[in-house]
Amino acid sequence: MGEIMNTLVVFAHHEAASFNAAMKDQAVAVLSARGHQVMVSDLYAMNFEPLAQRSDFTELSGTEPMNYLMEQRNASAKNAFSEDIKAEMDKVRWAETIIFQCPIWWFSVPAILKGWFDRVLATGFSWDFGKNYDQGLLRGKKALLSVTTGGSGPMYESTGINGDIHQMLFPVHHGVLYFCGMTVLEPFIAYAAFQAGDEGRKKYLEQYKEVLEHLDSRAVIAYRPHADFDDSGRLK
Amino acid sequence: MGEIMNTLVVFAHHEAASFNAAMKDQAVAVLSARGHQVMVSDLYAMNFEPLAQRSDFTELSGTEPMNYLMEQRNASAKNAFSEDIKAEMDKVRWAETIIFQCPIWWFSVPAILKGWFDRVLATGFSWDFGKNYDQGLLRGKKALLSVTTGGSGPMYESTGINGDIHQMLFPVHHGVLYFCGMTVLEPFIAYAAFQAGDEGRKKYLEQYKEVLEHLDSRAVIAYRPHADFDDSGRLK
Repeated sequence: MGEIMNTLVVFAHHEAASFNAAMKDQAVAVLSARGHQVMVSDLYAMNFEPLAQRSDFTELSGTEPMNYLMEQRNASAKNAFSEDIKAEMDKVRWAETIIFQCPIWWFSVPAILKGWFDRVLATGFSWDFGKNYDQGLLRGKKALLSVTTGGSGPMYESTGINGDIHQMLFPVHHGVLYFCGMTVLEPFIAYAAFQAGDEGRKKYLEQYKEVLEHLDSRAVIAYRPHADFDDSGRLK
Repeated sequence: MGEIMNTLVVFAHHEAASFNAAMKDQAVAVLSARGHQVMVSDLYAMNFEPLAQRSDFTELSGTEPMNYLMEQRNASAKNAFSEDIKAEMDKVRWAETIIFQCPIWWFSVPAILKGWFDRVLATGFSWDFGKNYDQGLLRGKKALLSVTTGGSGPMYESTGINGDIHQMLFPVHHGVLYFCGMTVLEPFIAYAAFQAGDEGRKKYLEQYKEVLEHLDSRAVIAYRPHADFDDSGRLK
């Protein structure tokens, strides 16, 4: 059964009876049954605030116009984040694995989850200047995207009409998760979840159970380390 | 000077004194001086709601669990959107060109603009089944991303540490704008806008003026038409 693992499930869907909610519940059930500790951030249920703004900080540096990224750095040094952001940061610190469960809307995550990235993964907390990618501050943690799509699998092949699924997810996989130093696992994709019908969705839940039971050995998406690039950011 | 053109600027930044705001103002000034009609959706100032939810519809189809995309279709047929969504749709209908002005956060647009995509570009309004990409319902309109980045230009070259800028923007360019049928112009990127200093930012504003004065002839990003793919979405 492996070691006990702390897992955070960040869940972004508005409907408690949705297939995405069932996927979130599956993660909680399977991982708990294996003796892992699981926490859930149910963003819609929490009425999570998605907008980066001044009230995210209990203290401002005073520099005008306010630069959000620089204020994040300042707040990281002074622990001056709003309570809702601090609570999410505590969960991230605690977690060894973070699962993101959401539908793909417009080739990306729903706005509420984008807002979680914008606000919680603060400069000075998840990364800092010179400390990103394999040097990111969240290194050692694993991340898994578990998403549903409207389009079918063939549409997301390399010559499919929507383009390769990994190209679509690159900004999140590479630009968010790996940027913070996380080890990015191969995503779980429930293609055309709406059109799959009850049987198809049941099958997805079973496949997902398998994935969850073998997270330890799930394939990792390989990315280049920081050291491969020179100071200007060009490949050496 | 060309024809009179209706332009909508969708602006997503929290600070009225920011460089992004100056870029938005530049677009309004330059296009107005050329006799064009310009409208601005200042999402933060409007306190624009970014979360897709039931209250986006004045009438629901009654299907449970609610599927947001299917409710959008239903609402498009019955004009049953909330007032804030209707107001944005009216601007989109009116516009011949839409400019999106925002900072790049986490390799994508800020949550508030993602929420605008999620809620305003509704199924049945901007696209429908079989009516996407070059067949999208917003075909004939032009779209321009004008964005600022934290990273410098070399970091976004094809072998740069952040990956090619066009790869980063692909989900928005191809997956949002072209998906709705819009003609996607080459983006305007103000790299490392924060570190550029006052002189650098002044130069960006001048370059942007040039871009705005020659929008008619700005290079278009070429994408494959729908007819290149078979019914399963695979390249023929």
